[in-house]
Amino acid sequence: MPGEFQLIQQFFQREQAEQPAEGVLLGIGDDCALLQMPIGKQLAVSVDTLVAGVHFPLDADAELIAERALRTNLSDLAAMGADPLWFTLALTLPEANEEWLRNFSRGLFACAREYKIALIGGDTTSGPLTITIQVMGTIAPGTAMRRDGANIGDFILVTYNLGDGAAALAVIQDRIYCDESSAGYLHERFYRPVPRLQESALIRGLATAALDISDGLVADLQHICDASDVGAIIDVENLPLSSAVQSLNNPTQALEWALSGGDDYELCFTVAPEKMADVAMLIAQGKLNATVIGEIVPGNKVICEYEGEPFTLANTGYQHF
Amino acid sequence: MPGEFQLIQQFFQREQAEQPAEGVLLGIGDDCALLQMPIGKQLAVSVDTLVAGVHFPLDADAELIAERALRTNLSDLAAMGADPLWFTLALTLPEANEEWLRNFSRGLFACAREYKIALIGGDTTSGPLTITIQVMGTIAPGTAMRRDGANIGDFILVTYNLGDGAAALAVIQDRIYCDESSAGYLHERFYRPVPRLQESALIRGLATAALDISDGLVADLQHICDASDVGAIIDVENLPLSSAVQSLNNPTQALEWALSGGDDYELCFTVAPEKMADVAMLIAQGKLNATVIGEIVPGNKVICEYEGEPFTLANTGYQHF
Repeated sequence: MPGEFQLIQQFFQREQAEQPAEGVLLGIGDDCALLQMPIGKQLAVSVDTLVAGVHFPLDADAELIAERALRTNLSDLAAMGADPLWFTLALTLPEANEEWLRNFSRGLFACAREYKIALIGGDTTSGPLTITIQVMGTIAPGTAMRRDGANIGDFILVTYNLGDGAAALAVIQDRIYCDESSAGYLHERFYRPVPRLQESALIRGLATAALDISDGLVADLQHICDASDVGAIIDVENLPLSSAVQSLNNPTQALEWALSGGDDYELCFTVAPEKMADVAMLIAQGKLNATVIGEIVPGNKVICEYEGEPFTLANTGYQHF
Repeated sequence: MPGEFQLIQQFFQREQAEQPAEGVLLGIGDDCALLQMPIGKQLAVSVDTLVAGVHFPLDADAELIAERALRTNLSDLAAMGADPLWFTLALTLPEANEEWLRNFSRGLFACAREYKIALIGGDTTSGPLTITIQVMGTIAPGTAMRRDGANIGDFILVTYNLGDGAAALAVIQDRIYCDESSAGYLHERFYRPVPRLQESALIRGLATAALDISDGLVADLQHICDASDVGAIIDVENLPLSSAVQSLNNPTQALEWALSGGDDYELCFTVAPEKMADVAMLIAQGKLNATVIGEIVPGNKVICEYEGEPFTLANTGYQHF
């Protein structure tokens, strides 16, 4: 891309220089970044791509796209129990639009400062708008929350509310109408999902398995079942729904969004019975916002029940723009 | 993307399981990869994106695209003096074409095995064909070849030949004609550039600065000048040209490709006078294929001279598909 170096300098390198970060021996501007790992820690790495027209509307605000891109990646660190440290940005742009880049970098660095993660390198190329972020975090040996640790009898919990991501998408795409206050809440939930890093730090000594919900509760919980060689029952009546989703006045739709909508970026985690009292106390003390939604059982599938009766899910599938 | 998990399992995760790699505590399939850094080493990280229709033709063979994507990224590790260790792959695809993925993964893993670098994670999304690879390597403290270490009086060298990348592009795009043997050589140079890791290991105790030539010698050497606060003179008559480029029978065009064509992925490095005898001995012994092409001088610009006279470069610019 012509002017790539000037653009990088102007919007990314300068900001980095003003925010010296832990372990960064050499940041943006050479062939590689040079990094020093904190002693005694392991490195957690995750990469995610957002494509315009697939993961966000083509006309979405650049600042919000940046926020969403970094936040959804940070959610993967939270899901693993890792603390954010560094990230890289590979940005493909149809044109080198200065205003777009200014807004994008404003959103990116606001989020990076909030979660104490440093931009250490990147690449800017010409092409259809695509954002690939790779996050790196640290984790103490033996404390990672993997997908393969769930056992029969474990409780299944989720943080905060489910279904907001899918509801937000429906509002953004004008498929449903809702009041201004709910629309504002859902818009925020879609573009500025909160990576559950605080919750992750609370539960990482207590959970047997964890992941973040990006594809929908049923699909993602199935990954825990596959990796742990267990089954799961979801008590659908216990799914936590925001007042915004409840106000949309279609209870069946709300449950389907919560079960299969995706884009929620809440943590789903399992807790052994002997640790459940500790987790329940954190919830009771208001330190942890989480709800028991089911149980790990023998088998290999995720089963949904409503008050003990089978609950059949209409497959709403994955919603592209 | 529907079927994303099956595709990843089929083409990427399985191969990874068969190739256990250094420091990989947990690879593809969880929210993050978990990695253990070798003790006493620093981490070098680089990310690059290839976009279909920009960095390679839309109809290019998937196996070759994969090779080119990983090799050009490995070139960044070579430029820094780092040893390859791990990489991630973010793959955006218009459709989940099984044959394309089979060919792509064949090229990717052939190259990964050759250079002993392990795939540790990735993301597959739906959209215009884009490949983002992030490579991670290790480097002993104090041995990195940065861009900011060149001093006045240093010799400037490049590995192998320059101009092949631009000549290859001209042949692939049917802008010039050449004989079958040269075409075969240039095609290989374009899709399977050799990351100069062996040369990097030889020079990393001897070079004051280094980078790899992706944008063209003049543009890239300017980065060394900017970072080191020096100028440079290139002796154009000394530029090493392959017999394929020489056979194209247009000497002026050949020099311009060598100076500004880009896509060569050769190393450009600087050597202090007191170390030059050691480097010259490596060249004389046939261990290092490199040529002295100029000198670091006072100033801040790259100047081209032909037998001591100013040489003006017609700006051929960056060639998009």
